[in-house]
Amino acid sequence: MDPVNLKKLAEQLNLSVSTVSKAFRNSYDISEDTKSRILALARELNYQPNPLASSLRTQKSKTIAVIIPEIANNFFTQAINGIESVAQESGYHVLFYITHEDHNKEVSFTRLLQSGRVDGVLISLSNGAGNFDHLDQLREKGLPMVFFDRIYESSSTTRITTNDFESGYLATHHLIEQGCKRIAHIYFSGRLSISNKRKDGYLKALADHGMEVDEKLIVSCGQDRTENFRNVKQLIEQEKPDGLFSSFEKLVILAYEVCAELNIVIPDQLKLIGFSNLETAALLNPSLTTITQPAFEIGWKAASVLFKALEKNSANIPDEHIVIDSVLIKRKSTEKGEY
Amino acid sequence: MDPVNLKKLAEQLNLSVSTVSKAFRNSYDISEDTKSRILALARELNYQPNPLASSLRTQKSKTIAVIIPEIANNFFTQAINGIESVAQESGYHVLFYITHEDHNKEVSFTRLLQSGRVDGVLISLSNGAGNFDHLDQLREKGLPMVFFDRIYESSSTTRITTNDFESGYLATHHLIEQGCKRIAHIYFSGRLSISNKRKDGYLKALADHGMEVDEKLIVSCGQDRTENFRNVKQLIEQEKPDGLFSSFEKLVILAYEVCAELNIVIPDQLKLIGFSNLETAALLNPSLTTITQPAFEIGWKAASVLFKALEKNSANIPDEHIVIDSVLIKRKSTEKGEY
Repeated sequence: MDPVNLKKLAEQLNLSVSTVSKAFRNSYDISEDTKSRILALARELNYQPNPLASSLRTQKSKTIAVIIPEIANNFFTQAINGIESVAQESGYHVLFYITHEDHNKEVSFTRLLQSGRVDGVLISLSNGAGNFDHLDQLREKGLPMVFFDRIYESSSTTRITTNDFESGYLATHHLIEQGCKRIAHIYFSGRLSISNKRKDGYLKALADHGMEVDEKLIVSCGQDRTENFRNVKQLIEQEKPDGLFSSFEKLVILAYEVCAELNIVIPDQLKLIGFSNLETAALLNPSLTTITQPAFEIGWKAASVLFKALEKNSANIPDEHIVIDSVLIKRKSTEKGEY
Repeated sequence: MDPVNLKKLAEQLNLSVSTVSKAFRNSYDISEDTKSRILALARELNYQPNPLASSLRTQKSKTIAVIIPEIANNFFTQAINGIESVAQESGYHVLFYITHEDHNKEVSFTRLLQSGRVDGVLISLSNGAGNFDHLDQLREKGLPMVFFDRIYESSSTTRITTNDFESGYLATHHLIEQGCKRIAHIYFSGRLSISNKRKDGYLKALADHGMEVDEKLIVSCGQDRTENFRNVKQLIEQEKPDGLFSSFEKLVILAYEVCAELNIVIPDQLKLIGFSNLETAALLNPSLTTITQPAFEIGWKAASVLFKALEKNSANIPDEHIVIDSVLIKRKSTEKGEY
């Protein structure tokens, strides 16, 4: 089947291609009557404008890129739903790039985007080692960007996170309230500011309650699951904490698995709390007390800020840190019992 | 910062734009020496070809679309990882469209794709009511497509699923082996062939074991979560099944929640098995026996078939049904106990 293009429409209406093209750009150069005739035929023949050609004309791709570290993660799938709800409303297409925490991939994705494929970028950083030059370069190219969750703190654009410090504080405070005396913390090491802030919240809560920091109770994890398992197992076995705060969902699930292997009873022997957007948190054995992030809202807000700039045809995104609070949901994993 | 474009390169080298452009198309019309000079300057100035302009020239967007019903779903996030691993290797960009089970959205997404934005499509159908005309139209436009998981059975392209019938059979057979006499089945009604096949497997297993089908034990669910909860609760409360097979992850999680509300003890009073790719299946209370689909492999295979056709510059994708088997993972939710 031959595609219906501008030329075909022009031939059938005995008009020039440029006149037909003006109808689709809603130009004032042609009469309303001509415009209606063109649009009526276009509808009749199911004409679809070529997006590549019209993007070239308008210099707009009507596409944004979303760069995220992973997708099999409840926080990110919920954030994507938030992003995508705004994109659909605005008639934008969404390209996804998954870095799998690899800094090199992040660099090459941002390179690919320098050349006009997209109108804007939403990005949540990988935790891989490396500098931020590629992000500065992308900004210099004038491409609007918004950071969400795993932000680049010194970027001069909008950054959206939850209240990481306060949530880390709240989680630790909750364990103290539940009677814990030896509270461990597990987190992902690396360049993520959110990880450091959650840890700072933990340290501040200990200090405020006059509890000493025991470095042996703080375990940093990396990308190697087996090694993380070994380190968390060693922490629980040797240091015998009575409370544990994990700043990432993956690590709190790991802690459950370690406890199962060691026959540690949660919450009797160890109380657990973690940042998590797990939909099955209430169904775990025992149900998991969580710091639940407003993931959908964070994605929604990030996309809204970006589209607001795109609508105004401006790369000028406010240099601002927007914070949307998490909630502490108490469940059995931190319950006081009569043991 | 002004973008480095062909014109700028041409000016600095005192060449015509068309000569410079030929260097990037590796044309034989210009000398090797000229070509090297152009490429050297392009590298020096960090020139990025405009993908829109070069797509228009080659009629290739180096982009594929993935249309899925939802993203906060372990099957789909794992399948996306499979798709994306092939796309990254092949240097392709991936647009995602989420239908949220809405047939109208599916139709409008496929309309958007008719106009050359992408080189090919991977699609898993929404369960909304409606016909398949939009998919036939997309095929007529010559756009290569591959269906995965929720396939359009009568399409003349490659369709990739797990062994849905056999897995439904196996799940039911397992419940019978564990001593269940009244086995219920919950599924999503609608146009999904995979749902019907899994149900057929359930029916065949009952028949093979000389067990009568009780229609009151078969509950079809829809998009309304509250209504599904009410129906599944009514099923468990009134019909008192001793086994339950759910053909979708969402519904088996719902069944856990219903049991918690009714104080039904799993597996003592009711044994549960479900299709699920839940990473926390082993941590649930009790751990969940699953039919686990090869989600990553299904996504990987779908993308591989599509890219093979794209590489050959062919819209000709084999009319074939590829089946990748699921596995039954036995856990506590179907264990025989001494009650």
